[in-house]
Order: sequence, then structure tokens, then C-alpha cells
Amino acid sequence: MLAANYRGDRTITVDEREPDGLRPGEVRIGVAFVGICGTDLHVFHGDMDTRVTRPATIGHEMSGTILEVAPDVDGWSIGDAVTVMPLAWDGTCPACLAGNEHICQNLDFIGIDSPGALQEQWNVPASTLVRLPAELSLRDAALVEPVAVAVHDVRRSELGPGDKAVVIGAGPIGVLIATVAAAFGADVVISELDPNRRAAAAEMGLQTLDPSSVDQVAWVERWTGGAGADVVFEVSGSAAAVLSATSLAKVRGTLVVVAIHSQPRPIDLHRVFWRELRILGARVYQRRDFERAVELVAQGAIPADKLITRVVPLTGVASAFEALEAGQAMKLLVEVPQ
Amino acid sequence: MLAANYRGDRTITVDEREPDGLRPGEVRIGVAFVGICGTDLHVFHGDMDTRVTRPATIGHEMSGTILEVAPDVDGWSIGDAVTVMPLAWDGTCPACLAGNEHICQNLDFIGIDSPGALQEQWNVPASTLVRLPAELSLRDAALVEPVAVAVHDVRRSELGPGDKAVVIGAGPIGVLIATVAAAFGADVVISELDPNRRAAAAEMGLQTLDPSSVDQVAWVERWTGGAGADVVFEVSGSAAAVLSATSLAKVRGTLVVVAIHSQPRPIDLHRVFWRELRILGARVYQRRDFERAVELVAQGAIPADKLITRVVPLTGVASAFEALEAGQAMKLLVEVPQ
Ligand SMILES: [Zn+2]
Ligand SMILES: [Zn+2]
Repeated sequence: MLAANYRGDRTITVDEREPDGLRPGEVRIGVAFVGICGTDLHVFHGDMDTRVTRPATIGHEMSGTILEVAPDVDGWSIGDAVTVMPLAWDGTCPACLAGNEHICQNLDFIGIDSPGALQEQWNVPASTLVRLPAELSLRDAALVEPVAVAVHDVRRSELGPGDKAVVIGAGPIGVLIATVAAAFGADVVISELDPNRRAAAAEMGLQTLDPSSVDQVAWVERWTGGAGADVVFEVSGSAAAVLSATSLAKVRGTLVVVAIHSQPRPIDLHRVFWRELRILGARVYQRRDFERAVELVAQGAIPADKLITRVVPLTGVASAFEALEAGQAMKLLVEVPQ
Repeated sequence: MLAANYRGDRTITVDEREPDGLRPGEVRIGVAFVGICGTDLHVFHGDMDTRVTRPATIGHEMSGTILEVAPDVDGWSIGDAVTVMPLAWDGTCPACLAGNEHICQNLDFIGIDSPGALQEQWNVPASTLVRLPAELSLRDAALVEPVAVAVHDVRRSELGPGDKAVVIGAGPIGVLIATVAAAFGADVVISELDPNRRAAAAEMGLQTLDPSSVDQVAWVERWTGGAGADVVFEVSGSAAAVLSATSLAKVRGTLVVVAIHSQPRPIDLHRVFWRELRILGARVYQRRDFERAVELVAQGAIPADKLITRVVPLTGVASAFEALEAGQAMKLLVEVPQ
């Protein structure tokens, strides 16, 4: 079978190799589609070389069908359409014992810390499987993982119907958060400096804001009748955005830190104190987020056609990474031969 | 009667003047004791001159007895022992309408934005009164306001019995938070660089930590069985403390920002994201905090004798401010002639 291998130094090759043998508790998936995300791009850039054992088959946003089921696995059959929640926890650390397995202190993120989906056949623990309904295409199902991230962020914020949310940053995750927040009944505006991203978000039916031409604080103040936003999602990763984000939230409002900030960022703690704000970190997802994400994608609540701007074959995976880093795609899928 | 007047430029005078007339809805209190806090010191230093109309009678931590009750006020009688929750809200802003009157967007903090307690007779709206039980001395009752701050901070953190809490900073509020957290059933350690403050906290029965001689992160990790603290209270106001505070909290742990940080502070947002931390601002108090504070002081749960290191007469109020800024007192009370 074919498998993609990250070899360090911005190099990914596609090589023929024998499929792995199936271990107890596992299923073998025939991979159909794999999404490439910002984290994969970080790996490609070498930013995660201390964590990634090379050669590494990465990829964690996927869909496929079951080809083989280990004898000790119940509840799954050959031909079942599935996606994978790519987390493996130890079950014994303080985080796990407190019920926060998804952010286990020794979490194995499958596709980074262990082999991922960019191969024809992928063996995973049956416990990671999430069932896909018949009406959901395997192509769209490759969006479930990033949608689950967005569902987790929105659930963590406790955003409710009729609430007002500001999403800072209209990259793939920002757009998904805005879409999911709207699906949860919130009024949403997405703030983005880049005109192309802003236009793409507007085409998906999202209300947009250009913070370089509009006084964002005054705009949000007007939009919320002088209150401020119920929830602000920081998805841009920019220091300036973090610093201004606290000015957008209402008294007792919430700021969710979604973007990865590799260095400490100045935060207006006086504002945090004055308005009794709440800042929440949000990372990956829980099973219920995945299940809700499957429903949302299956119901067509996510603009899959507009998000998936490019599909490339597995043999062209290197060019896919190059296109993504050149900003030529919102969401890029790799199609794996069946 | 005598009243203290802040006149700007580190000057407070005590002057004779006529008592104010009583307006509808008000009671006249014969002030007994007034505590001087860090905020009062900020006023004295001129840091709040844009907010404080001079000459200003400040003071908002107090106890006293009712001398006169306006005809339209029910439920209060001459001779009642009281303290005051020094907040007046508009009742109409979005924060008030959402039930957060205590941090009203147009809050009047009595004693800063309007006249305070450093005078023989103080007229306040009856709605601000909090009843004191007979067994509570008026001297100790002057601690109720700062204890209410601590109760609010601890309640906001959702700290529970058996939880582990780190308090950073052993000034008056840090010591009170640690004491209240312990009264709520938590295990507490208080971290403080200054040896005198550390010794004072230890004398109050608190477990202390010297972050300059102990690896704080490793210490907390051991103390919590590898989990991290349930709650960290940042009371020091130091940038370095804020930056390291996130390393002390468990997965899904809470950092409460109690100290006032006049400039933005770098925060380790990667840690906030990685552990799904929660950062909460906490400001002033709600009525239930005051009521709980009265109970705690009345029960002797607060080491009043150790906290009140000095009592000066109203005529010596200027020297009281000087002693406080020289760090010669943990909690300093002004005694007002009855
Ligand atoms: Zn674990
Ligand atoms: Zn208000």
C-alpha cells in the first residue's frame, strides 16, 4: 500500500510499504479522505520535530470504511463508514481521573505522537471510532474533526441561543467556530484583516468586520446595546488581537483562547478584573463534540462545498502542503485510492 | 464634627465641619472604626486624582452605630450596629440588568466616587447597610469589608472542600483569601517573597512558601500528587507572578486575578490552552459575600488580633497613611471618637 512519510526538512514522500498487522482491540480502516490542517503544516515546517518521530505518517482529519476488525472488537463491521477521534489517553493521570481524558497529561495525539491517516490502510483502536451516517459523504466527513474542535470551543464558552459572539480570525477554524456558534443560535460577527479571507467568510453567509477600517470596540458596543459581546473567540494567534479582545467582552463575558500562542502575550488584566471577565483555554474535543460535529456536517449546517477548496490525490501530497502554505486553500483534502 | 479630607499631593487634614443633612432613604451612622487599605493609599498618593473630587473624605472599611434614620426608611433603628457595603449601582445598565449590579458599568464606589467613612457622622443609603451581630466587636467589624472581598474571590473560584489552593502574595488581602479558603475547607499554601510578611502569615497558622528558595512548580506538583493546584489566586500584582501562576494550576484549574495590574501582563496562553485553564477576574463583592464575611469575623475564623496591628485616632489619620506606606502595619484602623 501507499503511505505518506514526513522525513524532516519540509520533505514528504509517498512510499510503498506492507500494511501493519492488526493488534487486539484495533480495526483496519481503508482511508478515503484526509484533511490537512495548520498543525500538519507545523509538522511539515519542522516546528514539531522534537515531538514527531521520523519518518512519520501524519494526518488526523479523515474518513474511511472498515476493512478488518480484530476478533476481540465488538460493535463494528467491515464496510462501516467511520471517522476517528484521534486521542489516546492513559486513564490514570490526575486529569483522566478527574474526567478530563481528552486533555490527559500524557495524551497521545494520533497522527502526531503516533501514526496517522495519510496511508491507504490505517489501524486504530476501536475506541477511537465515530460512526458516520449513510447520508454523509466520505468527502464531507473529512471535515468532522475540525468541526468537532469548533463544537468543543463553542460548548466550552457556554454560548447560548441569542447570545452575541465575536470570532477574531477567519481561517478555517475561525470560520467553523462562527458557523457552529450560529448553528447553536448565536448572533455572530467574524473579524478579519485579510480581505480574501473576509470575502470567503462573507460568502459562507457570515457577518464580517474589518478591524483596520472599523473601530471594533465601538462597533461591538453598538451591536450589543452598550453591553459588549457575550463571548469572544481568539482564533487569530496575533498578540494585538489578544490585547484588544478583552475590550470586546461584556461584564462577566468570556474570552476563549483557541489559537496557539507560542510565546506569552500581554493581556489587559485590569479589564479582566474590572469586568470580572473569564478567559478559557479550549483544546481538542470530547466524544460528544465529535457526535455533534457528525450531526452538523450531515445536516448540511457546515458549508462543506465552500470550505473544501481543493482535493488532491495521495501521490500529490507534497504539492498539497505547498499549496496550503501558499494560502491557496481554505481546506485541502487528500483523496486516498480505495 | 471632625472629618478627614484628602486635599491632593499626599495631604490629608482633619477639619471641623457641620454634619450633612439626612436625605430620604438614608441613615446617619456614628462611625466607630475605619480600616485603611491599599486603595486608600493609592488615593493618598494621587494615583486616583482623576476620579476623586477634592477635598475628599475617603474610607470604605468601617463599623458604627446608627444615630438617625430618615422617616421613609424601614427596618433600622437608632443604636443598631452596622457596617456598609459601599456600592451604589444605577440598576439600568446591561451589567445591572444581567444581575451583576456589584460591577455595574456606572458603579459608584462609596468612599472613592462619593464621600466615605473617615468622619464622625456618615450618611449612607439604608440599602447599603449590613447588620452586625451583638457578639461582634465594632473594632473587628471594621474587617468585614476586606473579608467580603476575600469571600467574593473564593466564591468566584468555586473552590470546594478538600481542594488545594495557592495564594500568591501575603499582603492583607492575600492573607484574608488564604484564611477564607481554609475556612471553606480547602488546603492552602501562601507564597510570599518578603520574609516579614511570610512570618506574619505563618503566625496566623497559614502554610507558607518562599518562591525564592523553593522550586514552586515542583513543590505544588508534589503537594498535589502531580495534578497541580485547583485554584491559584494572584494577589501580588507582580508580572513575574502572573507569568508563573499558570504553571501551578491543574488541568481545568482556575487562576483568579485579584490584584490590580495597571498595565497589560504577559500570560502563558499556551499553558492556558494546553491545560484548558480558566482565568477569572474578581472585583468587589455581592451582598451574600458581606453576610458570609460578617459570620466569619463573628465566629473568630479571621485572626483579627493578628491582622489589626495598629489603631490610631482620627486626628492622627495622616500619620496612619505614612505608617501604612512604610509597611509598618498589616491592617491599620482609625478610631473615630463616639
Ligand atoms: Zn491521563
Ligand atoms: Zn448598572
